[in-house]
Amino acid sequence: MHPPASHRMAYEAFVQALQPLSLAPLWTEYHRLLTPAPQGKARPHLWRYAELRPQLLRAGELVSTREAERRVLMLLNPGLEGQIAITPTLFAGMQLLLPGEVARVHRHSPAALRIIVEGKGAYTTVDGQRCFMEPGDLILTPAWSWHDHGNPGNEPVIWLDGLDLPLIQTLNVVFTEHPTQAQQQARLPDDLSLRLYQQPGLRPPAPDTGPASPLLSYKWQRTAAALAALPAEAASPYDDLLLEYTNPHTGGPVLPTMGCTAQLLRPGVQTQAHRHASSSVYLVVQGRGYSVIDGRRYDWEAGDVFVIPSWAYHEHANASPHEAAALISFTDAPLIRSLGLYREEAHPGGHQPLA
Amino acid sequence: MHPPASHRMAYEAFVQALQPLSLAPLWTEYHRLLTPAPQGKARPHLWRYAELRPQLLRAGELVSTREAERRVLMLLNPGLEGQIAITPTLFAGMQLLLPGEVARVHRHSPAALRIIVEGKGAYTTVDGQRCFMEPGDLILTPAWSWHDHGNPGNEPVIWLDGLDLPLIQTLNVVFTEHPTQAQQQARLPDDLSLRLYQQPGLRPPAPDTGPASPLLSYKWQRTAAALAALPAEAASPYDDLLLEYTNPHTGGPVLPTMGCTAQLLRPGVQTQAHRHASSSVYLVVQGRGYSVIDGRRYDWEAGDVFVIPSWAYHEHANASPHEAAALISFTDAPLIRSLGLYREEAHPGGHQPLA
Amino acid sequence: MHPPASHRMAYEAFVQALQPLSLAPLWTEYHRLLTPAPQGKARPHLWRYAELRPQLLRAGELVSTREAERRVLMLLNPGLEGQIAITPTLFAGMQLLLPGEVARVHRHSPAALRIIVEGKGAYTTVDGQRCFMEPGDLILTPAWSWHDHGNPGNEPVIWLDGLDLPLIQTLNVVFTEHPTQAQQQARLPDDLSLRLYQQPGLRPPAPDTGPASPLLSYKWQRTAAALAALPAEAASPYDDLLLEYTNPHTGGPVLPTMGCTAQLLRPGVQTQAHRHASSSVYLVVQGRGYSVIDGRRYDWEAGDVFVIPSWAYHEHANASPHEAAALISFTDAPLIRSLGLYREEAHPGGHQPLA
Amino acid sequence: MHPPASHRMAYEAFVQALQPLSLAPLWTEYHRLLTPAPQGKARPHLWRYAELRPQLLRAGELVSTREAERRVLMLLNPGLEGQIAITPTLFAGMQLLLPGEVARVHRHSPAALRIIVEGKGAYTTVDGQRCFMEPGDLILTPAWSWHDHGNPGNEPVIWLDGLDLPLIQTLNVVFTEHPTQAQQQARLPDDLSLRLYQQPGLRPPAPDTGPASPLLSYKWQRTAAALAALPAEAASPYDDLLLEYTNPHTGGPVLPTMGCTAQLLRPGVQTQAHRHASSSVYLVVQGRGYSVIDGRRYDWEAGDVFVIPSWAYHEHANASPHEAAALISFTDAPLIRSLGLYREEAHPGGHQPLA
Repeated sequence: MHPPASHRMAYEAFVQALQPLSLAPLWTEYHRLLTPAPQGKARPHLWRYAELRPQLLRAGELVSTREAERRVLMLLNPGLEGQIAITPTLFAGMQLLLPGEVARVHRHSPAALRIIVEGKGAYTTVDGQRCFMEPGDLILTPAWSWHDHGNPGNEPVIWLDGLDLPLIQTLNVVFTEHPTQAQQQARLPDDLSLRLYQQPGLRPPAPDTGPASPLLSYKWQRTAAALAALPAEAASPYDDLLLEYTNPHTGGPVLPTMGCTAQLLRPGVQTQAHRHASSSVYLVVQGRGYSVIDGRRYDWEAGDVFVIPSWAYHEHANASPHEAAALISFTDAPLIRSLGLYREEAHPGGHQPLA
Repeated sequence: MHPPASHRMAYEAFVQALQPLSLAPLWTEYHRLLTPAPQGKARPHLWRYAELRPQLLRAGELVSTREAERRVLMLLNPGLEGQIAITPTLFAGMQLLLPGEVARVHRHSPAALRIIVEGKGAYTTVDGQRCFMEPGDLILTPAWSWHDHGNPGNEPVIWLDGLDLPLIQTLNVVFTEHPTQAQQQARLPDDLSLRLYQQPGLRPPAPDTGPASPLLSYKWQRTAAALAALPAEAASPYDDLLLEYTNPHTGGPVLPTMGCTAQLLRPGVQTQAHRHASSSVYLVVQGRGYSVIDGRRYDWEAGDVFVIPSWAYHEHANASPHEAAALISFTDAPLIRSLGLYREEAHPGGHQPLA
Repeated sequence: MHPPASHRMAYEAFVQALQPLSLAPLWTEYHRLLTPAPQGKARPHLWRYAELRPQLLRAGELVSTREAERRVLMLLNPGLEGQIAITPTLFAGMQLLLPGEVARVHRHSPAALRIIVEGKGAYTTVDGQRCFMEPGDLILTPAWSWHDHGNPGNEPVIWLDGLDLPLIQTLNVVFTEHPTQAQQQARLPDDLSLRLYQQPGLRPPAPDTGPASPLLSYKWQRTAAALAALPAEAASPYDDLLLEYTNPHTGGPVLPTMGCTAQLLRPGVQTQAHRHASSSVYLVVQGRGYSVIDGRRYDWEAGDVFVIPSWAYHEHANASPHEAAALISFTDAPLIRSLGLYREEAHPGGHQPLA
Repeated sequence: MHPPASHRMAYEAFVQALQPLSLAPLWTEYHRLLTPAPQGKARPHLWRYAELRPQLLRAGELVSTREAERRVLMLLNPGLEGQIAITPTLFAGMQLLLPGEVARVHRHSPAALRIIVEGKGAYTTVDGQRCFMEPGDLILTPAWSWHDHGNPGNEPVIWLDGLDLPLIQTLNVVFTEHPTQAQQQARLPDDLSLRLYQQPGLRPPAPDTGPASPLLSYKWQRTAAALAALPAEAASPYDDLLLEYTNPHTGGPVLPTMGCTAQLLRPGVQTQAHRHASSSVYLVVQGRGYSVIDGRRYDWEAGDVFVIPSWAYHEHANASPHEAAALISFTDAPLIRSLGLYREEAHPGGHQPLA
């Protein structure tokens, strides 16, 4: 039975009166807001390095770091139109630093991490300590740490920047400082933190380090060795051989807002599908394979970046019968976990049907 | 010196090639993203209960709780157009439950709290325990707790709902469940938690309570007594006499994502101005006064709601020389603090000049 | 087959050679050291207030507080000969302060608590704050807090002192300071902490409080009200109605080394027997009843003190069909729990057979 | 003025009446109990490996592991007569396992650690995982973990056992279990934890590990590399180059009751003197030098063990101008710190005068 026309008119008048008062009915939005499961607009997506790299090198011809402050191509989630984000909490960008270039010093409340894709000889200076870059390295610039980049070498260096910027924007606590000088003095020994944290389970007496890891650089050489050492018994059905990057002073995530993992997909491995209440961005460090995300297959090779939104089913496969594939990811899972909101579930069929 | 036209054309071609690849230059957005201080769009705003209440009662005539699921008028921040939010992390709504009505049971991953504005005799059932409502009470429905509302009394009951919904949407972890029955069985004694937590510093042996407070109801009668007991020495220059609502099993905030405070502005008190990296929503529980937020004065009286966005200077004044004024607020400060991003600063002049 | 005599002589020569080297064989001590369950020498014991009180008053005649520094009769566990301890970790003493007397200010690394047995009008000044005493109150003097006692009233005041002194001696970290003046200035309002912590779940913004509770006084009036409010559903089979005293800033124990509980045995209640890996000292605050500890019955009434060593089975009974009995205890359980060494088990028969 | 004889007699009668009541005056003990600084009986002491080793080998001839359960010579602090302890909280023993021998499986609530002094090829099986021994290795057997030792090699293996046994005895929570079989099945890969924790800052996803480290073995090879990597800037004036062994899942001590450190005294280094409120036992792993403890010099070389009681001033010197010296220590400092009782102070003169 439809409401009578008089009721409808009264209702419309009522609704129109609300807007000038900055009020609105919840009931028309209720089912859109409180969904049975996450219905975010972020979509799975893959960026091919073969396509991205030429554009980045072209940017190197067209834009100087002096003009750009940071020469970064942002990886924008195609589902999040109008937003500068790869997921609702994470930002990803691919940065190029040419030989002889410098990216000026600044600091900001969003935290950042870098995963090196190509080239070596560049560095990030973090609070006075230069951290040198080689492919596969993970380098941290924690919230509010001074940082600048330099490339005194003779080859272009490209890395993936991961930031918690969209989250920090939502929290409305973005702060930034730009000093007048271009670069920091390197007042500490180069790669000091690699020397202070040289072996597992051994660390210098606790300084007052704040919430982020004082180990600022995680060399790929170390990560590859750690992955290679893992016995088959340690394999996860969903991730094969996986390690978490941690803060050696807490055993927790490298940054309060972002965690990182490295994983090895052994030759021929195809993992099972699951989903969880957190988002991740992956960089392919070596090998070739594919991931099936929400029923669609994404083939990847070294340098490619892909994103798995919250609650999307996903599984990974190494297409090669001979060579291992390696992925590094960054994720908002630590934050979700700390709020008690993390959950995960296996795909009931083990694998997803392809769409 | 302007770049030559050829460069401009090359650059434009380059930019146009990016969009199909879901790429974009950072440098054109850089200064908009990394601002010196928070530049969120959320604005200070005040909703007058004298204006809001008639609309809510009108909604009571036009929409049933059966139709509406929840009869709530949402308080939408006028700066956050297109968003359902009072701040980028917080949701606020005013809810009406008429005598004899029921709001159906559900549970969701966003956490909620209620501050009762008017009427008594209604209840919220939280995981089998009915919490009865009186003006000024704070009632929690932690993330994923079953809850429904009922009003077996004989007067309309109105309360302010506070949720972390915008944050949980950003985190992309909204989950909701609707069972088939309309209401929960009250399988625990009414207001059990008020009996288990009856005196400060005394609690039952720790259950496995999860991150939210098992004390579900904070009666205004208790809060008023606690505020009245505070000595003048305990006054803050910015908030006069203020207490934090806490989880008795941790001493921390009542919910992992939202904290609550109650404060008493003594007769004639005018606080000093400061600002901090967190957002708050205030309900005026008693008295009359005003707050100056970002240089603009907002006069308030009981039932009014106002919002102070992150990093906005604010100060409060009790306009009456004889009667105390009381405010209850909810805030995202606990989350910001847990991420190490909280900061605050006093206004250099003590008070803001009025705009 | 016995070892040949030559072996025996060689062995004896070997053992004799060890002692000058500060060495000794483990194997002769092995089974004495690594016992299946705790075999400490501490015994259950009960001190009757009817016997203790006259001796304490006699001490009041014979020894001044000026001479004694503290006029305390120590309750020495009869099993721990040569040790000044009621359990291997805890010290208990009964202290008397006569009208007009003062016990001088000092501070020490052992933490102390007081449970008032008789009299009122005396106070303990803790870091400049006087906490006034009434029977049943619990007052804390955390490690390294300045404290002195005064009795400006007109009746003798007697209280039970509980300290972690034997533990701190074992840890070999006893420090003490005696200033030259006799008493502290009362530089804070009397019983300030009772005003700052007036209602459950409400507290002032967190100061930098250290590990001990800033709520220094737990009035019996509050405790009795909290116990009386507990519903029957909250009863434990081993302790009937029990509450833990907590630090309102952590929800944890009042002191890092000692926790306290208050419990109400309802009229006629007889609890079941269990045992746990921690020791407790009980003061009977009101009523009459008995406890069966390690198979032996100990009848008690108000003012009596009894001790239950680690891993001794125990159960409690209120002998009165009409009046509730109340006990306050202090225990080393928080420390044992924090080390992951706590365990408990129910008596297989529910109740112990009497020896 | 002396008290009159009548008073003295009355007082003596009073004191005599106390003992049958298990009471005693505090005032006669007060200054002995509450000392200005730690006055424990534990003394500094050094055990020369040159003296200890022959006795241990002699024990190997005279006592079988079957008879002895553990063939251990206990290092008894000469100040703690009648106690089985090297400090009031710590136990140390030197254990010998001959080729072909087995030390039976058991588990106990005291936690243990082993530092290998001599020989290789033996193992400790911890909860089904064999950890193989080489000189300088640290191996953990956390509280209540099943453990047995075996020596399938062809040389005697000697190690230093460190336990928290005196502490656990004081806490009165010693539990032990002896199963009927002699040894555990090795149901996990040998030295699995060395493979799971292969590089700093990288670890497998968190299992439910309890309070002790799941990294069970810390190879000297790794420790030596970590010490060698430390830059001079990291040197402490009191300890030269020092690292803490940690639980990779918490960043905290390897065991809740005991922490371990490794330190390198560079050639010719002489540290400054300080003292702290915790006790330590040191094993000399390599080199020659001396420590001055409470004003007395103790010369040491590889295999020697020495103990520094709480609050004893100490400083270390490497006597060689060419070779580094290395020490591994275990200490109760983590427990003292967790209770908020740790303190330290530098010697006012930098170095101690020799007694």
